Amino acid sequence: MKFNQVVQQRIDAWNEVSLAFGPLLLGESDDWATARRNYANHQAQHPTPAGVSVQEIHMAEVPATMVTPQEVINDRAMLYIHGGGYVAGSPSGYHGIAGNYAKLLNARVYMPDYRLAPQHPFPAAIEDTLAAYRWLLDQGIAPDSIVFSGDSAGGAMTVSVMVAAKREGLPLPAAGAALSPWPNLEHSGASMLTRDGIDPTVNLAGLNLMAKAFLNGTPKSDPDASPIFADVRGLPPILVHIGEREVMLSDAMRLAAHLGENRVRVTLEVWPDMFHVWHLFAAELPEGRKALERAAAFLDESLKAPC
Amino acid sequence: MKFNQVVQQRIDAWNEVSLAFGPLLLGESDDWATARRNYANHQAQHPTPAGVSVQEIHMAEVPATMVTPQEVINDRAMLYIHGGGYVAGSPSGYHGIAGNYAKLLNARVYMPDYRLAPQHPFPAAIEDTLAAYRWLLDQGIAPDSIVFSGDSAGGAMTVSVMVAAKREGLPLPAAGAALSPWPNLEHSGASMLTRDGIDPTVNLAGLNLMAKAFLNGTPKSDPDASPIFADVRGLPPILVHIGEREVMLSDAMRLAAHLGENRVRVTLEVWPDMFHVWHLFAAELPEGRKALERAAAFLDESLKAPC
Repeated sequence: MKFNQVVQQRIDAWNEVSLAFGPLLLGESDDWATARRNYANHQAQHPTPAGVSVQEIHMAEVPATMVTPQEVINDRAMLYIHGGGYVAGSPSGYHGIAGNYAKLLNARVYMPDYRLAPQHPFPAAIEDTLAAYRWLLDQGIAPDSIVFSGDSAGGAMTVSVMVAAKREGLPLPAAGAALSPWPNLEHSGASMLTRDGIDPTVNLAGLNLMAKAFLNGTPKSDPDASPIFADVRGLPPILVHIGEREVMLSDAMRLAAHLGENRVRVTLEVWPDMFHVWHLFAAELPEGRKALERAAAFLDESLKAPC
Repeated sequence: MKFNQVVQQRIDAWNEVSLAFGPLLLGESDDWATARRNYANHQAQHPTPAGVSVQEIHMAEVPATMVTPQEVINDRAMLYIHGGGYVAGSPSGYHGIAGNYAKLLNARVYMPDYRLAPQHPFPAAIEDTLAAYRWLLDQGIAPDSIVFSGDSAGGAMTVSVMVAAKREGLPLPAAGAALSPWPNLEHSGASMLTRDGIDPTVNLAGLNLMAKAFLNGTPKSDPDASPIFADVRGLPPILVHIGEREVMLSDAMRLAAHLGENRVRVTLEVWPDMFHVWHLFAAELPEGRKALERAAAFLDESLKAPC
C-alpha cells in the first residue's frame, strides 16, 4: 500500500528522528536530550484538534499534561500512557491523540511524563504511571469513571499498570485500550521476523536495543515488562488494536489470547495495511481517525453512564 | 457463573437431546431421524421474534428457509449457516437467530438445509452451502449486499465457504460473522483440555465423534474442514465471537490470528462466562441479544450503504 504524500513524509521524518537513538543505545553518543527533543517535536507536528485546552500539571510527584475538552461528563478521566520504547516520547508529542480522545469521550485526558530508560530503567516507568493513577483516585474520581489507553510501550503499560494496581489492592479502571502494544520483550512472535522491513517505522534490531536499555538486566519474561506473562485475572475489558504490517502483530494477538484465556473480556482488531501506532495520524489518515473513534466507543461502553 | 433458571433448563434440555447422538455416532443405534428431529424441535423452542415471515424455498437444488423482515434495504441478504457438528441441526431450529439478524440488518436471511454426515460426509455440507451462495448471486443480488454468518460447524463454514467461493472465482460477500466457530478438527487448542467439562454443552469426546463422522477419512487438517489451515488471503472482514468457557476458545482465537496474519481485517471478541453459541439464547440471556446486536453492527459496516 502506498500512503498519501503527507503520511509518507511523516513516516520518513519519524524514521529520521528515530535514527539518532541507535548510537545512543549503542553507547556511541550521549546527547539524549537533543534526540528526545527532536523526537517529541516531530510527534507534536500532528495537529491538536480544536476545542481542547492543555495544561501542565503534577500527578503527585510525576509531571504530567492534562487535556480538557469543552464538556466533561461525570468527572470522566483517561490515563493516557505514551509510547517511545521506554527511552523516548513525552506528553508534548501526544496532544493530538489526547485531544481526540478528550472530545470523543467527554473526558479529561491525563498523560504522565514518566521517567525514561536507560537513565531510569525498569520498573521506573511503571512505578510513575501507577503513582499517577493513584493520584487520580486520590482526587476522588471514581474508578468506574476512569479508562486507560496507551500506545506501543504505553500499550503494554495499559495492561501492566492495571496488573500492578491489582497487586497493590487499588480499584481497577473501567476499561483499557492498548494501541499497537509492545507486550513481549522476548520478541518471540512470528511477525518479529515476517514483518521486519514491512513495518515502516519499527524494526526488530531497534526494539532489541530499547528492550535491553529498559530491562537493565531484568529478565525479558518479567510479567511487568512483558504482560503476555502476567496474572491478568480480574482485569476490566481490554481492546487491542494492531496493524497487520507491524512487527508486533503476533505478540499483540498473543496478548489478546492471554487475556481471553484468563476470563478478561477482550476485543482484538487487526487492521490491514496499518503500521505502528497509526492512531497518531488521526488528522492525516482516515484509518487513524476511525481507529480512535472505535477505541473511544469501546471504552465508552464500560464507563459509568451519565447521571 | 449460575445462569438463570430458564437458561439453565434449556442448557440441560440441549444436553438431553444431544445425548442421543452418542450411540448413533458409535454405531450402536441407527434412528438418526428421531434424534435429529428432537434436536431441531428443542432448538425451535427459542422464540422467533415478531415481525418476520418464514418461507420454505429452494436455493438451486438445496432446500432452504428464508426469513424476511418487514423492510429489506437494497436487496440485502445474509447466508446463515447453522451448526450441529455437521451431523445435526436444521434451519427449523434457527428461526430465532435468523429473525433477529433479519430485523437488525433489514436483510433477508437464507438458511440452506445442507446435507449431513455420516450419510453425506465432507465435503457435502460445504458443496451445498456454496451452491446456495451461487444461487443467491444468480438471483442478481450484489455480493457487496451479502454477508455470511454461522455458528459452530457453520461458523467454520462461514470462512471455508468463502475460501471455496474464492477458489471457484466467485465474487466474495461483504463480510462474515463466525459465532463460536469450530475451525480446527485437529482439536489441538489448549482449551480442548482446559475447558472440557466447563463448557456446559460441548465436550471433546463428542466433538471427536462428530469430526470422525464428517471427515470419513479426510485428514483433520484438510483446509476446507479446518479453516485455520486455509488460504484465507483476500477474504472480506470477519468477526469471530467466542465464549470464554468454550472448548473451542483457543482454536477460535487461532482462527482470528490466522486471518490477521493473512491480511484479513478481523475482530475477535472473547465473552467471559459465555458458552457454545450463546447467541441462540437471544430471548433468554441479555448477552445473547447483545452479541447478535454487535455481530449485526459489524456486518452492517461492510454492507453497501442504502441508496
